[in-house]
Order: sequence, then C-alpha cells, then structure tokens
Amino acid sequence: MSIESKLKELGLSLPEAPKPVAAYVPAVTSCGQVIVSGQLPMQNGELLSTGKVPSQVSIKDAQAAARQCVLNGLAVLKAELGGSFDRLVRLVRVGAFVQSDDDFSAQPQVANGASELLLEILGDKGRHARAAVGVNALPLNVPVEIEFLFEVN
Amino acid sequence: MSIESKLKELGLSLPEAPKPVAAYVPAVTSCGQVIVSGQLPMQNGELLSTGKVPSQVSIKDAQAAARQCVLNGLAVLKAELGGSFDRLVRLVRVGAFVQSDDDFSAQPQVANGASELLLEILGDKGRHARAAVGVNALPLNVPVEIEFLFEVN
Amino acid sequence: MSIESKLKELGLSLPEAPKPVAAYVPAVTSCGQVIVSGQLPMQNGELLSTGKVPSQVSIKDAQAAARQCVLNGLAVLKAELGGSFDRLVRLVRVGAFVQSDDDFSAQPQVANGASELLLEILGDKGRHARAAVGVNALPLNVPVEIEFLFEVN
Repeated sequence: MSIESKLKELGLSLPEAPKPVAAYVPAVTSCGQVIVSGQLPMQNGELLSTGKVPSQVSIKDAQAAARQCVLNGLAVLKAELGGSFDRLVRLVRVGAFVQSDDDFSAQPQVANGASELLLEILGDKGRHARAAVGVNALPLNVPVEIEFLFEVN
Repeated sequence: MSIESKLKELGLSLPEAPKPVAAYVPAVTSCGQVIVSGQLPMQNGELLSTGKVPSQVSIKDAQAAARQCVLNGLAVLKAELGGSFDRLVRLVRVGAFVQSDDDFSAQPQVANGASELLLEILGDKGRHARAAVGVNALPLNVPVEIEFLFEVN
Repeated sequence: MSIESKLKELGLSLPEAPKPVAAYVPAVTSCGQVIVSGQLPMQNGELLSTGKVPSQVSIKDAQAAARQCVLNGLAVLKAELGGSFDRLVRLVRVGAFVQSDDDFSAQPQVANGASELLLEILGDKGRHARAAVGVNALPLNVPVEIEFLFEVN
C-alpha cells in the first residue's frame, strides 16, 4: 500500500510543508539521504501544546505533539522529493528532544508516539535507529522537537 | 590485532546485543554507514548507575557508564554486521549526552570514558568526531546516553 | 566569489584549526561527507563568553558566540580538506545546542547567529538543515556548542 493510501486509511493528512526560513532550510539532500530539520508540533500555524513534560504537558499530549512532528517531517520530505514519496528508500534515524522536568525519565514513551506512527505509515520502510533525550528548554517552548534522516534514491 | 582479540586482551566481553524494541531498532545500515541507536549503560539487564552528574553519580562512575554504552554499541554493531567486525571501516561519530547538574561543565571528561575505550578497542579505526553536551534528563534516569555512527563496507 | 575572498570581504579570518585532542579528532571524512566535532566559542585560546542564555549571557552575546563556533568549524573543515575549500560541495546540517535558562525558548534566534553567517560566507552552498535545542549544561560552561556536517568531493 502506498504511503499516501496509508495516510488516508489512518485518517491523516499531511500539512503544507513549512516554507523555507531565511536562515536555514527545511531539508537538504546529500549523498543519497534527506536530512530534515528539527520539526515542531505546529498544526495550522499553531502549536499543539507548550511546556515541560509531564508537569505542564501530559505524556499523552506530548505523544500527540510527537505525532504532529512526524506529519510535519513527512510533509517536508515529500516536498523535498518533488511532491511524491516514490524515491523514499527508508527512514534511517529519528532524533527526539523532549522538554522535560528535571525528574522525568520516560522520554522513550513520548518518542514512541513518533516511532509508532512512522511504523504505521511507512511499514517496513519505517524501521529506524533513534536517540531520545530530555532537555530543559526547546524553541517556542514546545514539549518535543524531532529531526529525521531518510534514505532516498 | 583483531577487535575480538583486543577485547579479550582488555579483559572485556561484549554483551548480547539488545533485542529490537517494538517502536524502533538498535541499528540501521544506510549508504555505507551503520547508525546505532542511543545506548544506555545497561549491563546484564540492570543499569550501572542512575542520576545526575556529579551530585548523584560521580564523574568516575559516569565514565564507567559511558564505557558500558560503548560495549553495548559495539554489540549492536556486531549483530548488525552479521556477527563479525570484518566489514567495519571505521568509527565516524560519537554523540554523548550527559545527565548533568545545572552547574556541571565537564561533560568531555565523562565522554572521554567512551572515546578512550573506543580508541583502545578499535585502534586507528576508532578515531572519531564527537559532540558531547549536558542535558537535564535522560531515559530511565541514566547518567549518560551515547549514539554511534560507523562506516562499513 | 571564493570562500576565502568572502571571508576577507567580511573582515573575518579563520583561526588556526584546533589541534586534535587525545580522545577524539576535530573532523572525520566518511562517505563523501565531513563530520565536524562540536565546536565551542573559543577565540585565541579564550572563551568569548560563559553561562546560561539569557540570564548570564545575552542573546546578542550568544549570537556572537555562535558565530565564533562557525569560524572554528570552518577552520576545522579547511584543515580536514588539506588547506583549501575547493572540495566543499555544500553545508548539509547544523546542530546547535544553546545553554538555556529553564524558561528560555528563543534558541533559534541564537542559532541564527551561526546560520546567517554561514549563508553569508558560503552563499548557496551554505543552505542547511538545522536542529536547535536548549540544554541545561555545556562543556566549559559555554553558551553554545555547534556541530557541522558538510558534503565534499
């Protein structure tokens, strides 16, 4: 099943890919890979949630934010590939940064929100290496920021 | 001297490679490189230490944890390469995250526990680029998480 | 215009590339890419500033520190390429870690200090993917650490 069909079946749709920002770009293709910049849980121009996990954003809400980062990252990938996923070989790596209270240590649970959705959408092409860590602060006070590395042909 | 012989000479043995977790995999091979997921200082199913450096985990203990991450990462690499290091060209990059007190700034000293062991085991193939940073929180409250990038053929 | 000429026009000069440290190296070339280790805002052997942003280091000073990381990273790249930028194809990725107060969320503003200088010096070759995050602690108490990934031929 194509990635587009899978998204439809899951009742998901990709957002417009974010426009290039002045100082950097959403994605770069190099040596057979697409490097996607760190994605924030932006939906229709607004953040799904803000704050630290779990005191200000629940684990469940942080997982939802992680899923939104995935949709935004896939939208960036699709735009970088000229509007189609045909050239996607596989997802390679996910880097997840979770804005954490000092005593929070379930970052993998939050990152699983992203990882499981990626597996669901991409199937076997979605199996990836991952580094998930906590940080005390993130851009725009988001609970999670995720970057992606894809192999393409 | 082979990597296996070197490990033996150093009195070290590699653990069983961690089993693939549902949501992601220990390693991915892409474009001539093996990307190893962030490794924790797990030994025989238990964490070597937990807490922030240095108030809860001494620098010396954090270095020991970093060395355990190396052994786990090498075990993952070996499994990914089909049970042998023969195809290893070199280590390329180490990313080290140290769970730090707010006023701790000797992350390189902790990361050296990993870097020096890698040089000892891998010899010239072990020279690597590195980014070492502090974070306020890590999965399972570990003092250090390390990810690895290897070149293979 | 060559990169060297551009630097001159901007009134900038590259520092001596940092000497290899025992435990790791400033850069590794692998699979058509140069991976540059995390750079600190060191200038003539001294740190431009130390502390957390913005309580101890202003955003403006942190941007200056980010620019110094860029100059150091370019010096490392040039040394890795044998003393010339001729083989540089493009910058691919910038990873920026900003030592942040717990309530600081303008890491992109700090990282823009690096990104904008890279675009200015490298032109079209300087367009890059980026991940910018906050952390509670960094080596030597620097306000910002930046790593770089370049494509070369």
